[in-house]
Amino acid sequence: MGVFYPKMSTKPNPTTPVITLTSDFGLADAYVAAMKAAILRQAPNARLIDVSHQIPPQDILFGAIVLERAIDAFDPGTIHLAVVDPGVGTARKILIAQIHSQTIICPDNGLITWTWRKWKGGRVRELTWRPRQPSRTFHGRDIMAPAAGMLAAGKSLESIARKPAKPILLPQAPMKRGADTGEIIYIDHFGNCMTNIPRTALASPRCNVLVGEINIGRIRKTYSDVEIGQPLALFGSADLLEIAVRGASAARELRLRIGDEVRLQ
Amino acid sequence: MGVFYPKMSTKPNPTTPVITLTSDFGLADAYVAAMKAAILRQAPNARLIDVSHQIPPQDILFGAIVLERAIDAFDPGTIHLAVVDPGVGTARKILIAQIHSQTIICPDNGLITWTWRKWKGGRVRELTWRPRQPSRTFHGRDIMAPAAGMLAAGKSLESIARKPAKPILLPQAPMKRGADTGEIIYIDHFGNCMTNIPRTALASPRCNVLVGEINIGRIRKTYSDVEIGQPLALFGSADLLEIAVRGASAARELRLRIGDEVRLQ
Amino acid sequence: MGVFYPKMSTKPNPTTPVITLTSDFGLADAYVAAMKAAILRQAPNARLIDVSHQIPPQDILFGAIVLERAIDAFDPGTIHLAVVDPGVGTARKILIAQIHSQTIICPDNGLITWTWRKWKGGRVRELTWRPRQPSRTFHGRDIMAPAAGMLAAGKSLESIARKPAKPILLPQAPMKRGADTGEIIYIDHFGNCMTNIPRTALASPRCNVLVGEINIGRIRKTYSDVEIGQPLALFGSADLLEIAVRGASAARELRLRIGDEVRLQ
Repeated sequence: MGVFYPKMSTKPNPTTPVITLTSDFGLADAYVAAMKAAILRQAPNARLIDVSHQIPPQDILFGAIVLERAIDAFDPGTIHLAVVDPGVGTARKILIAQIHSQTIICPDNGLITWTWRKWKGGRVRELTWRPRQPSRTFHGRDIMAPAAGMLAAGKSLESIARKPAKPILLPQAPMKRGADTGEIIYIDHFGNCMTNIPRTALASPRCNVLVGEINIGRIRKTYSDVEIGQPLALFGSADLLEIAVRGASAARELRLRIGDEVRLQ
Repeated sequence: MGVFYPKMSTKPNPTTPVITLTSDFGLADAYVAAMKAAILRQAPNARLIDVSHQIPPQDILFGAIVLERAIDAFDPGTIHLAVVDPGVGTARKILIAQIHSQTIICPDNGLITWTWRKWKGGRVRELTWRPRQPSRTFHGRDIMAPAAGMLAAGKSLESIARKPAKPILLPQAPMKRGADTGEIIYIDHFGNCMTNIPRTALASPRCNVLVGEINIGRIRKTYSDVEIGQPLALFGSADLLEIAVRGASAARELRLRIGDEVRLQ
Repeated sequence: MGVFYPKMSTKPNPTTPVITLTSDFGLADAYVAAMKAAILRQAPNARLIDVSHQIPPQDILFGAIVLERAIDAFDPGTIHLAVVDPGVGTARKILIAQIHSQTIICPDNGLITWTWRKWKGGRVRELTWRPRQPSRTFHGRDIMAPAAGMLAAGKSLESIARKPAKPILLPQAPMKRGADTGEIIYIDHFGNCMTNIPRTALASPRCNVLVGEINIGRIRKTYSDVEIGQPLALFGSADLLEIAVRGASAARELRLRIGDEVRLQ
């Protein structure tokens, strides 16, 4: 792995590394601020960007999708701290992964899955640094946030992590290529229902999209290709097929849920 | 328009321009972070301040009121990015407006209305800059955020926008001056109900306020002018008449909704 | 009090003081941004960290606990702005407290209670600075935020505050030491139920924990000491006894509420 941050040295402002935060901590308690304090203690100049703290509690798949979206959005050299950690206090490892020229620090519980698959793997190590007295219940604050800060402050990866680790991955969502059948894997704030069907799965741009019994019609380019209140299928900002309703929530209007089957015909 | 940012050059810290963000994206998904990444790519030193990402989905009026409050709060030179954009993918324009010595970038769908009326207009141009391949579904990330970053980084307005545009405005809330009758236009987190009645509409400081059948009494100066649990009318931080209940939610206690009529008598 | 910020001068980056924000303002309206604008007007280089804006409306006890957690997390020299202020517009004072080498600005209504008790008091003054025309309804924006910014910008405490004030404290939660009986005082985002029982109250590490009729068993070290779905008692990140359910919400599963009695046996 040698020089771990080749891109960072080329950044215009190396003194303000960007660290993003993703968690299921919610925003009511002081947990997120406690992680930020721990980062700033190591890297007073780090720029902190919240991705989401409203991952549903302990929902690793939701967190994995949001984390992949964050890595897709940010530039080389960015450090991402992701904490959805139902196994805190167990022997589960903590990972430092270098994927797509960015660094991810997260528990080894599948949270890296989407990022790993999207960019076809990367270099993964196990974080071995530990504080003298970490709590048993809040490794985000006590271990992962300080580690993110250390890397941002220029500490070498080798000094806090050891030999490549193989990350735990969530089972692949059952996209059956032959049958062009996928499923709803994520529902966003607007009620748009993202499937696991990529653009490359399309046999023809003119195929119809079916959700259960509902024929959504052919794939559209944008919401305004249908009337307000009408359902449509389109490729969203993640470049995956989405089921939407123009001007409303598809999840509510069509009563869709994560796991519902979506077919191309 | 010539020199667009005369005030910015007088700011103490021109290398850290302030960009605020207002949207209906919610905080669970990675959408807001994706906009921030796009801004930072253009302006690594920009200071990003969230105004709200909990505008109710596609509620342009709510967004317009919050945006006006942001412009009221910030200093000359601030750049405001506001994205409530049900028309994304249609031919709707994107505006760059200079109002009250600040800059607003938003879709041309009425979102500028409150700011425009409060400061009696301003200079508005149409954003013409486009990336090579914008998505059809996320112009906040692909067009508006980069444009905000470009302006923050010192790019000239003329290079990314063209000739004055006339903004689309929402219909004026029907404040009938003669009858001193207005309506509830906004309900905040505390359940305080803001009306469209300005201080200047008062014929007398001793008039009574009526909401439907309920006589709220005369206008008070602060919450503690009534007992806990009692309703009151007062001028809130936006200098518009508000209906409140001391120590509780007026919306819930009095069963008030947006559009309910409020009279001065 | 003399030199008020002895620690700040030793900080690596004195030009970017940290100011945290805690309030019950929610995130939908522009209230939080208005406070930030007021801070930045005084201290353009301040680093702003949100602790929580989802304190339940006017819930001073919840705010006091979150504020103590923030002070526990941050370094000497940090300034904390906390606004849960049902008494805005009354004669209630505004405090500037120096506790645990940090500064707290908040209304004098008990919000300081937990911080005060945890660190056994501190130095408290009354903020006397006022703007020319403060509103009667938003002292967070008009008085407290500017004061936080002034201190961050290096203004002396003496110039804006006067002689020691004695803070108002909330009544102590009725932890009966002899009987080893406490109560649930805070329920977090995960449904973990924090009690007012500190580690020092334990007569023996092998005692059982009882919540109402439910015997939770002995105190565990971490969530994974029980099976998924099982309840447990453990010392959480605040070092107070918590009732949890592994992988679920104890509040929901065990139907617990703030005020429920918890006994050690």
